[in-house]
Amino acid sequence: MEVDVMSNISITTVDKSKIDSFDFENVKFGAKFTDHMLVCEYKNNAWQQMEIKPYSAIELDPSARVFHYGQAIFEGMKAYKDDNDDVWLFRPDQNFERFNKSAVRLAMPEIDEERFIGGLKALIDLERAWVRKGQGNSLYIRPFMIATESGVIASPSNEFLFCILLSPAKSYYSGKIKVQIAEHFSRAANGGIGAAKAAGNYSAQFYPTKLAQEAGFNQVIWTDSATHTKLEEAGTMNVFFRIKDTLYTAPTSERILDGVTRKSLIELAKSEGYQVEVRPVLVEEITKAAADGTLKEIFGAGTAAVINQIEGFSYKEQYYQLPELKDEECFALDLKNKLTRIQNKLANDPFEWTVKI
Amino acid sequence: MEVDVMSNISITTVDKSKIDSFDFENVKFGAKFTDHMLVCEYKNNAWQQMEIKPYSAIELDPSARVFHYGQAIFEGMKAYKDDNDDVWLFRPDQNFERFNKSAVRLAMPEIDEERFIGGLKALIDLERAWVRKGQGNSLYIRPFMIATESGVIASPSNEFLFCILLSPAKSYYSGKIKVQIAEHFSRAANGGIGAAKAAGNYSAQFYPTKLAQEAGFNQVIWTDSATHTKLEEAGTMNVFFRIKDTLYTAPTSERILDGVTRKSLIELAKSEGYQVEVRPVLVEEITKAAADGTLKEIFGAGTAAVINQIEGFSYKEQYYQLPELKDEECFALDLKNKLTRIQNKLANDPFEWTVKI
Ligand SMILES: Cc1ncc(COP(=O)(O)O)c(C=O)c1O
Ligand SMILES: Cc1ncc(COP(=O)(O)O)c(C=O)c1O
Repeated sequence: MEVDVMSNISITTVDKSKIDSFDFENVKFGAKFTDHMLVCEYKNNAWQQMEIKPYSAIELDPSARVFHYGQAIFEGMKAYKDDNDDVWLFRPDQNFERFNKSAVRLAMPEIDEERFIGGLKALIDLERAWVRKGQGNSLYIRPFMIATESGVIASPSNEFLFCILLSPAKSYYSGKIKVQIAEHFSRAANGGIGAAKAAGNYSAQFYPTKLAQEAGFNQVIWTDSATHTKLEEAGTMNVFFRIKDTLYTAPTSERILDGVTRKSLIELAKSEGYQVEVRPVLVEEITKAAADGTLKEIFGAGTAAVINQIEGFSYKEQYYQLPELKDEECFALDLKNKLTRIQNKLANDPFEWTVKI
Repeated sequence: MEVDVMSNISITTVDKSKIDSFDFENVKFGAKFTDHMLVCEYKNNAWQQMEIKPYSAIELDPSARVFHYGQAIFEGMKAYKDDNDDVWLFRPDQNFERFNKSAVRLAMPEIDEERFIGGLKALIDLERAWVRKGQGNSLYIRPFMIATESGVIASPSNEFLFCILLSPAKSYYSGKIKVQIAEHFSRAANGGIGAAKAAGNYSAQFYPTKLAQEAGFNQVIWTDSATHTKLEEAGTMNVFFRIKDTLYTAPTSERILDGVTRKSLIELAKSEGYQVEVRPVLVEEITKAAADGTLKEIFGAGTAAVINQIEGFSYKEQYYQLPELKDEECFALDLKNKLTRIQNKLANDPFEWTVKI
């Protein structure tokens, strides 16, 4: 069945949805997708017509640039359903903007709002049944763009594919995690692509993270590549440190992804009366605060996990265990609860972050 | 037609070769490929049977790791034909080793020699007609590996595809190039993946290179990300500097690709009586040498271009033009000639670098 809903979008739907065979109780993050996807080609210097179609394989020439030169970017965002069955996005403008910043840094074409926001709204509208209500439930949205032109020559592609996938999600990590502070490996450098959500940034972290996992840790907290003295962010999360009753987090930079969760938490925390300081956080002050007992909490913040509490970290062969706080004393839990309630439309949204589809 | 040549390889050939329609006079580097390709899957913790088959599209789930996290590596090497129609590889052991080093750094499985070297020999053997004789002529070989497992979760794939493509080549660049020395952008950092031939390293360079091109330069010479004071390498070439009659090139490091051309040139140049020093090369000493007239040559060295002469460079808004040397005074031309003659089997190979297929 092929229908034109807008002049700029063609929709082909599946004959039969696979939703009945989807187990919403046991959801593995990012593993399964909804019935449809959105695709849009870029060629002859222009974005072409959008197409919503059954989720299906991508076919590319083996010399396509994405396979050889990693010209690929993505975004991660979520949709939520409220008690009235309305579906909401959380700050989609931020992801749209960041996607285009990533595009520029990777020498890829920017995309227009009609395609990015309009396209994903149209796709989610079709997949409403896949968005479940309830705090923590969401539909994870994965817009991405890959370089499709063929030819093994190390120069930017002239052809691209923009695509949106949807995957039902609960929360990302379960439980607290242990992290290792990077002493040798690094994620990003000044003048590099660390601030872009570029594919290549992630595979670069796999090996050091594997080593950390073999040593008994879940994740790495990256430090600045030049001196390894400043705490930057984790694999897919920005990081907050609570010393006494103040929250500290590094300023965004060329090396650090400008996380939507991070910026929302900063605003939310301030409005809730928490003390928040955005400034470089030194490894040294954290180990010192851990030693003298003033380091109360560390947590990661990102769309997938929302907030992930960190129970301890290792640095220079030493392991630092954080204190066990009562739930009601945790800034992390309070902020996570407040933010997810806003996202799931279970609380007021004074910031006007949520956008109805 | 399906034949088993070795227990571990299946071969399906094209019905009709497209070689007659290939224009060997006007070859654009990396744009066109031979009739066949080699593929080999990695799954269930093991490399599967190799397959040589007609060059054809790769089909992947849209959530395949390579599209989202850039888990992809490659190699670049060449085959040459001598006057007796024998086909030769140049130091394939070096590319094989480097491929596996890249694999480790990107958390990908290493591949065995039978598949990498054996596989490419079998493929080239089938494509002998595509290798043309004559100095500078070659068949460019592109082994690569991509992460194929589906799922948008930022962790290493458990499934991979190894693939080899072949593309007839002449030389890569024509004429001398102008370069820009990087002052702000960077290619790699300590603790990063600069020494790996990882896909993500290349797309990271596209935007700064585009800016350099808009300013009238062909390429960027990267400096160390921490201080921007040391000259490292170009996009796909290591770099040599001649001051008076000595050649200088940076030592390889975590940030610099260990180029086969670079190491071969160092050995060849030494054996030809040239003075070669491998040590960090400072931007400052090069601008100084350019100013006082002792900087005679700069050239890039890599498989694709072999040697690419650089006629001048810009640094801090200033352009430094190198002297016009007579051809017979150029170390670059002499070394390029000697190396390509060894590669094309037009000269003796005292180093035993060439390997017959
Ligand atoms: C490297 C990195 N840092 C931080 C984040 C958090 O950003 P956001 O809150 O926008 O999801 C992400 C995204 O998931 C990320 O990939
Ligand atoms: C970043 C980089 N540096 C240097 C080189 C040169 O290495 P080789 O001489 O092995 O081709 C390459 C490969 O082409 C490269 O990609």
